[in-house]
This record gives sequence, C-alpha cells and structure tokens, in this order.
Amino acid sequence: MKTDVQIAQEAKMLPIVDIAKDLGLKEDDIELYGKYKAKISLDVYKKLEDKPDGKLVLVTAINPTPAGEGKTTTNVGLSMGLNKIGKKTITALREPSLGPCFGVKGGAAGGGYAQVVPMDDINLHFTGDIHAITTANNLLAALLDNHIKQGNLLEIDPTKITWKRCLDMNDRALRDIVIALGGTGNGIPRQDGFDISVASEIMAILCLATSMTDLKERLKKMIVGYTYDNKPVTANQLHATGSLALLLKDAIKPNLVQTLENTPAIIHGGPFANIAHGCNSVMTTKTALKIADYVVTEAGFGADLGAEKFFNIKCRYAGLKPDAAVVVATVRALKNHGGVPRTELNNENMEALEKGFGNLEKQIENVQKFGVPVIVAINAFPTDTKQELKFVEERCREMGADAVLSEVWANGGEGGVALAKRVVEVVESGKANFKPLYDLDMPIKEKIETIAKEIYGADGVDFTAKAEKEIAKYDSIGLSKLPICMAKTQYSLSDNPKLLGRPSGFRVTVSNVRASAGAGFLVALTGDIMTMPGLPKVPAANKMDILESGEIIGLF
Amino acid sequence: MKTDVQIAQEAKMLPIVDIAKDLGLKEDDIELYGKYKAKISLDVYKKLEDKPDGKLVLVTAINPTPAGEGKTTTNVGLSMGLNKIGKKTITALREPSLGPCFGVKGGAAGGGYAQVVPMDDINLHFTGDIHAITTANNLLAALLDNHIKQGNLLEIDPTKITWKRCLDMNDRALRDIVIALGGTGNGIPRQDGFDISVASEIMAILCLATSMTDLKERLKKMIVGYTYDNKPVTANQLHATGSLALLLKDAIKPNLVQTLENTPAIIHGGPFANIAHGCNSVMTTKTALKIADYVVTEAGFGADLGAEKFFNIKCRYAGLKPDAAVVVATVRALKNHGGVPRTELNNENMEALEKGFGNLEKQIENVQKFGVPVIVAINAFPTDTKQELKFVEERCREMGADAVLSEVWANGGEGGVALAKRVVEVVESGKANFKPLYDLDMPIKEKIETIAKEIYGADGVDFTAKAEKEIAKYDSIGLSKLPICMAKTQYSLSDNPKLLGRPSGFRVTVSNVRASAGAGFLVALTGDIMTMPGLPKVPAANKMDILESGEIIGLF
Repeated sequence: MKTDVQIAQEAKMLPIVDIAKDLGLKEDDIELYGKYKAKISLDVYKKLEDKPDGKLVLVTAINPTPAGEGKTTTNVGLSMGLNKIGKKTITALREPSLGPCFGVKGGAAGGGYAQVVPMDDINLHFTGDIHAITTANNLLAALLDNHIKQGNLLEIDPTKITWKRCLDMNDRALRDIVIALGGTGNGIPRQDGFDISVASEIMAILCLATSMTDLKERLKKMIVGYTYDNKPVTANQLHATGSLALLLKDAIKPNLVQTLENTPAIIHGGPFANIAHGCNSVMTTKTALKIADYVVTEAGFGADLGAEKFFNIKCRYAGLKPDAAVVVATVRALKNHGGVPRTELNNENMEALEKGFGNLEKQIENVQKFGVPVIVAINAFPTDTKQELKFVEERCREMGADAVLSEVWANGGEGGVALAKRVVEVVESGKANFKPLYDLDMPIKEKIETIAKEIYGADGVDFTAKAEKEIAKYDSIGLSKLPICMAKTQYSLSDNPKLLGRPSGFRVTVSNVRASAGAGFLVALTGDIMTMPGLPKVPAANKMDILESGEIIGLF
Repeated sequence: MKTDVQIAQEAKMLPIVDIAKDLGLKEDDIELYGKYKAKISLDVYKKLEDKPDGKLVLVTAINPTPAGEGKTTTNVGLSMGLNKIGKKTITALREPSLGPCFGVKGGAAGGGYAQVVPMDDINLHFTGDIHAITTANNLLAALLDNHIKQGNLLEIDPTKITWKRCLDMNDRALRDIVIALGGTGNGIPRQDGFDISVASEIMAILCLATSMTDLKERLKKMIVGYTYDNKPVTANQLHATGSLALLLKDAIKPNLVQTLENTPAIIHGGPFANIAHGCNSVMTTKTALKIADYVVTEAGFGADLGAEKFFNIKCRYAGLKPDAAVVVATVRALKNHGGVPRTELNNENMEALEKGFGNLEKQIENVQKFGVPVIVAINAFPTDTKQELKFVEERCREMGADAVLSEVWANGGEGGVALAKRVVEVVESGKANFKPLYDLDMPIKEKIETIAKEIYGADGVDFTAKAEKEIAKYDSIGLSKLPICMAKTQYSLSDNPKLLGRPSGFRVTVSNVRASAGAGFLVALTGDIMTMPGLPKVPAANKMDILESGEIIGLF
C-alpha cells in the first residue's frame, strides 16, 4: 500500500493557471507563486459581488479521538466526488502551521487518495501568509514596548499588557518570559510570552475580514493592554493600523491550489480552534461561492467547537447561509468514545459502539439546532463490520440524518460519489434554514450558558471570580454585544477531556474571559488552553531532510 | 522634483518572464512569485557550470556619513549604464530587512532614476527568504531547549548556550530576556536574547552556500553552545540539519527582479555587515556570472568592512576573481569626513575636502591591496563645485584610480554611461590579479592584526582577557584556520565612530571573539556591536498605510 507522501509525489498536477481558467478566472485575477500555487485577487469578489452564491457545505465531525476521523480527507474527497457528478466544486481548507508540522505530526493536507497538493509547499511556508501575520503581530508588540520606553504618553501599565508576541513554532520555552532586561537602553522590564502565530488575534482578523478596509477597521480595535486607570489601549492609539495592514496586503488574498484529481482547492487562514474561531477565511468562502456551484469548507475540531463557531461567529459576521453540513465519524472512533482502548478497535463491539454513538448523536443534534440539515459521512475502514455499519446507518436515519459510507481515502473522488449525491439531494431539497444559536444582545454570561447547555449538554456554567471580573470590565467598555468564542478541550463535549461519548450531569467552569475586540469576539476559557505548544521528546523535525536532487524526506 | 516612490510607481515594469528570457533562462529555470518576481533554480548554475564566467565588479564606498553616499544607487545605475553600452549586465544586491524598514528608514532599493522594482514587494516580505531564515533559526532554538528539557542527553550547559532566537524586527525589548519561566512544564529557565534575523548565522550560511549539499554541511557545523565540560555542541548533534535545510529549500534560490530600465537585477541574501560578512549570496554571484557579461555587486558599509570581507571571506570561499572595484564617494561626504557639519555641506570648502579625502584615499589603497583595480565613482550633487570635483579627480588619478562623475540618480543609465565605459576599459585591461590579504594558516590573532594594520591603518590590536580566552578555545577545538569577520563601527576606519577622515596613531581593541563555525568565520568584536536594533521615538511604521485601492503610503 502506498503512503500518503508517495501518492502525493506521484500526483500529476496541472499548472495552477489551468485550474484558475476552469474557474473562469483571468490572468489578472491571480498571482502565481510558482507553477502550482496562486493568490486570488480581492477584486474577483468585488467584480462578482452581484452574482448569486453557490451552495455552502460545512464538513465537521465528532469529538476527535486518537483513532482519527479524517475530516480533511472527507472534505477533499467530497469535493472531488461533487466534481465527478458535474458540480463545479471548490474545497476550502485552513493553512497548516509550521509548529505542529515540525513537532508532532509532520505535514498534513488530507490523506490517501483525497489530498491537496503541492503537499510539501502547503506545509512549508506556503505563500507566506502566516509569516506575514507573525511579522504584523510582532511589529505591534515592538511598537508597544517602544511607546512605553519613549515616554509612555498613553500611560500604558506594563503589568496590564495583554498583547503577546508570537512565532509559528512549537516552543514551550517562550510561554512565560521576562523581557527588556539589561538596563535602560533595552526598555522597561516586564513579564511577557509568545503564542504560536495561529493563535494571534491577527490571524482571526485576517480570516474574518471582508476587504482591506474591513481588515483595517478590525486591526484598529485590537486591545493591546490597559492604562494605569484601566482604560483599554488599542492598536490604533499606537498608530499601528496602517503598517500592520500593509504587512498583510498579500496575506489577505486567498490561495488557490488543487486536489489530487486536479479539482480546485483554496487554502487560506488557519486560526486556532480554541482561543479563536478555527475557520478558514471569509474572503475564501465568499469568493469561492461566486465562482463555484459548491463550496465544501471545514471548521476545527468537533462540531461542538468548530461548527458552533462557524455558525455563530463566521456565518453571522459574513452573512453566510450554509446549505448542509457533513458530520464525519468512523466506527473505530465511536467505539473509542464507547470506552474501547485504541489497541482493540479492530474488533467488533456493538455495546461500545452503541455507547459511543452518543457523541455522534449529540453532534448531529447540535448542527440541527442551527437549522442546517445533516449528512453523516462514515469514513470507511477495512475493519468495520457490516453489523456495525448497519447500526450507525439506522441510528442516523432515525435522527433524520442519512449516513453514507465514504471511501475517498482508498478511492478518491470515486469513493465520494455516493456521499456527494446525497449531499446534493439534501442541498437541493432546500431544507436549510440557518439561524445563529443566540442573540448578540444577550448578556455575556447568558450567551456562554446557552452554548454550554444547548451544545455541550451541560447543566450549567460556573464562573470564577477572575472571569466575573473580566466580564464586568467588558460590559463597562462596551464589548458585551460580541459573540462568544469558546476555548474548551476538543476531546470531550464537556470541559473535561476524559469524558468521552455523550457525557451528562456536568457543569462547565469558565476560568477567564479575554477580549479579541478586533476579531470581534470574547474568548471564554475553560480549563488549561495551550496557546504555545511544546515539542515532543523526539520531534518530527529530527527525521526530516532534503537531498541535493530536491527530494524531501520525513515531512509526512 | 519627483520623489523616489513616485519614480518607482511610474516605472513600466516588464513581466519578469521577459527579463528571464533575455538572460537565456527557460520557463523551467524560474519560479514566478507574482508577475514581477521570480526565483532562479539552482539547476541553472549546474547546467552552465562549465561555461566561462562574465566579469565581476564590486561596488564599495568610503566610510558612510550622514550625508549619504549612494552605493546602491551607483550599483544599480552602473549596471544600467553597462547595459546601455551593450554589455549584458546584472546588478546583484542584498535583500532589505523588515526591521529597519519599519524603524528608521522605510524601504530602500536605490534612489532617483537608479532603483530596482517592484520596490514595495522587495521591501515587504519579498519572496519570503528572511522569514524562512527566521523560522530555521528559531526551530533550532526550540530543538535546543527541548533537548535540555527532555533529559539533556548531550549535557548542554544552559549557561553556555550561544545560539539566540531571532526576529526580522527592530525590537530592543528582546535583546536580553529570561525564558522558560512558569514551572517544570515550560523547560529550564535561562538567560536568552533575540537578534534581528539578518544577524543570524543561518543568513550568513545561506549567502555562502554553493549548493544544497554545501548548505547542509555548513548548517551541520553550527555551534549552539557548550557542554558542562566545555565541548562544543553542534546543530547536527541536535539532529536539526535536515529540517533546517528543508525550511530553506526555496530561500536558497536567487530572486530575479528588474531595474527601472528593465535590466536584470538579482536580490538575494542580506547578512549583517558587522557580525556577518555583509554580501549577497554566492549562488547569486556565481549564477549571474554564467548568464551575464558583467555582474555588478555590492558589500555592506565602507571598503574597510564590506570590501575586505567580500574579498577575504566571500571571494575566497567561492573562488571568485573580481575584475574591478568601484569606490563610491560624494564631495559632500568627503567634506563631512574633513570636519564640516551636515548643515554646511552645501558650501565649497577645499580645506575640509582635502582633509576628508584621506578617507577615500585609504579605501582606494585598501582595495588595491587585494590586487583589484579601482575606479572612483563621484556620485554627483548639484552643490558640487568645479574646483571640488577637479581636486578629487586629480588626487584619484595620482593613485592610479580614475574618478568618474556618476549622474545615475538624476539620469538613470544614461548618467552612468561614462562610469560604465571606464569600468569596461579597466576590466578589459586585465590588470586585476586578485589575492586575499592573509593566509588562513596564520594564527587567529595575527589575522586580526593584519586586517587592523593593513586595512584600518591601526598601530596594533589589544585583546581583552575575554577575547584571549575565546581565541584559546577556538584554537583548541580546531577553528583556528577560519577567516576573520570583523565587527567594527562602519563610521570610521578605526574602532571609534568619531574618528573620521583617515585617522592614524590608534589601536583597535578586540573585546570578544565569536565562532560562526557553520558560516565558516570567526567574528572579532570591537566596541559595542548591536545585533538587535531598536525603534526610534517616531517609528517609520507610524506613517505607513495601504488603501482599499492597493495604493501604498509612507513606505519610502
């Protein structure tokens, strides 16, 4: 059996100009980055603004398990399947971060015969978007510390700075640092820290901006810290808006690549799915909807985090109306949710499957609460038994959500035709009636409680004293009408990563609330949320290499 | 009169594929980055390796003054002039760093009618080379701290780590920091610091590497710190070589752009000219020599630093034989060297000019010591008087170095024709007989003394106890045969920035010696050398902006 990397390397890519031409894009609409990558001009959307939108399909999943679900693989495969049945379809994905790539997992862009290419470039620098974000983030930090050193006209309290520096790296040593040591010439010493770049608010902003003007409006409002008398200090007060926007002038443009079957893929933006909203860029989705019949997009982690934020934050801000959602599950992962350890997932176990199905059941309910019809994609494994598959199919059907076997990993687009056909039926039935889950006018705590009860199935929410204090602050500075971005473990519907399946009888604890005033959401933190990962004992980087011939080793 | 940015924005650029075609490059030899930038494949050099080289001309200068000399402008203008008289010529420059761009000076790529374009892209991210270097540098740092946290098998002493993190930013608050605070999970706390990315040894390596294999050989040897028993620890021992090389796979390729007159320019690599060697990449020079009749290249700061390192480090390692050198001076700058304050440079002052001429005189001598014939380019200013120009011309002629008036700033290539003609005459006379100044077998201190006496005109060198100790260490670990990279103020021939003109009767103090074992040189530090600049009270960033139309404001 071929490995993902072998399959990717054997891919016969078309020049990206040909992919663009198929989408009706002209030479001036794109900028080439080598032969197989291009940026799409923001003018494309402007030119087509009045054209009706294509259909929007979200791919989401159960809570992830070590067994793997194949959300991206299904996304890519579904888009290839839709193209096979005559629907011009774009798969719209997030950009991978270099940190995890060199840390735990190596590169990733789908799997098997459902991948996007060129895989090596996508995983290494790509078109430089994340580097631009890193630079903008750190320019703001430098301007901030420089302002304090050069007289501190704004009276910023060095102990109340909320803006952190960032690197696109897994580097735990930078989580908690003290800067500006060494004497007067180096500034005012203070505690600081680095986040991974995809956790930067600027990444979230880039993904929510609808134009350069909108980008600047959001950058302006970013809060970097507070004055001695607790007034918020914004990026705009540091005169940083223009220079940050300038650094992002190309990063804001969506990136066009292709799938293994030469169908179009746009990969753009990749905000963290815990402290940010975990969706690719609004400009990608909006542009893709103008040039394709179908756009298949994704959101990070399971539907409790990814889909909830996709609907409540991204769709609300961008005015998007999703036509259907695909919830990805595997029989193996459901058995894991039912208590079967990873080593025994190859054996049939109906009892565990039934127990673990609760997780899928809840995620289907969750999506349905937004008025979006659900199709379940069962990502097929050779070890799945007929009885197991039949059980999942029947239980899904009872919930009004047809389950379809997806074989895109093994068979590419052909393996996704059945799923694609069902998706088209559901979309064309016109059943979708999207609405967000909560009203922005609700008080902050009520919004959080609504998500916890309705989506997680919690009995209620406990707020720490710290969280209560922050919420009061945001009420007082006029940020109470922002949507909520939950930062919660991805492994459980609850805030306890050990509670698998469909837990009940639990409460959620909100330990802190942070403002991403530029991105336009309040982050409610539950448990320990890591914004700067570390490297494992043997980092993936250790086995990587490139030969004189250009051959790449160990990236995947 | 038009500003630089107006002139640049009015430029009629040709598609970069056309520029490449004129150089005989085929479609597969380049990778486009938008319409006006391309990377040149390393295979181009491999294919043409047996072809005879074109002629190599170095552009260097007197010690810089606040009056400005216009080294890059002269470089670009000379290359346009050479093209005008029928010599296919490439100008080969360094890549600008984002730090100074957003700090003090805004963007820069020549001036007046002698610029390279697209100026905004060249100054903003360009093709991502520096970001790749930043990432590689910081991956190595993360691997290092991770190694220590995960058991420290190599017994690295956290107090003897020499590898610093970096950012392409002017950020003084990161010069001196303490990392890995916050408890066991974050690693072992230690003192650390960030350099600006162009000061990273990886930048120097990228610029000296002659192939991917050579790049890896150099990366391997980088010393990151020392063990408890003082043995050097290399990047290779951290299993980092392959992953760092992989991150640099595109950064190693030269970048093709164009001048305002659509002649070819290659801009690639930009190591600091103090703690590194300050020249663009060897692959640029070697490739350009295969595809052009003339290559006009540059080195940082004045000839005492830039040309010395270009000859002793770059040319020695790359086997280059320069055919001529242009030393750039202005009458104004010479008067400044003669003691005239900046505000009075518009007035004729023969006495000051005569005194200040000593600086030019010494730099001419310096270049001649390497067996390279000199042409002086007087970068013309409207305030220069006939008498002043005549004086400089006569004095230069006495030294066997014809002085030619360069009017490229005002007139582009046409203003460089006279200079170009004289350069061709000198090159074609075949007088060049290049040899490095010192033998690598000399003891470390003797090499440093040779440079100080021969090039700076010092009476001798004093080594601090620290420097003596480091030199003894490098002798003991087998690094004594490396060339020397002097880190000295650029403003004076001496190590005291206040001593202008041609100082004498001074000694140079070497305070420390660092090893760049991968790049392949020992850095001798004199005085305070800044490896992380700070921002000024009003940073250039404050006035930058980009409009919805794409129009850029304040970058230059």
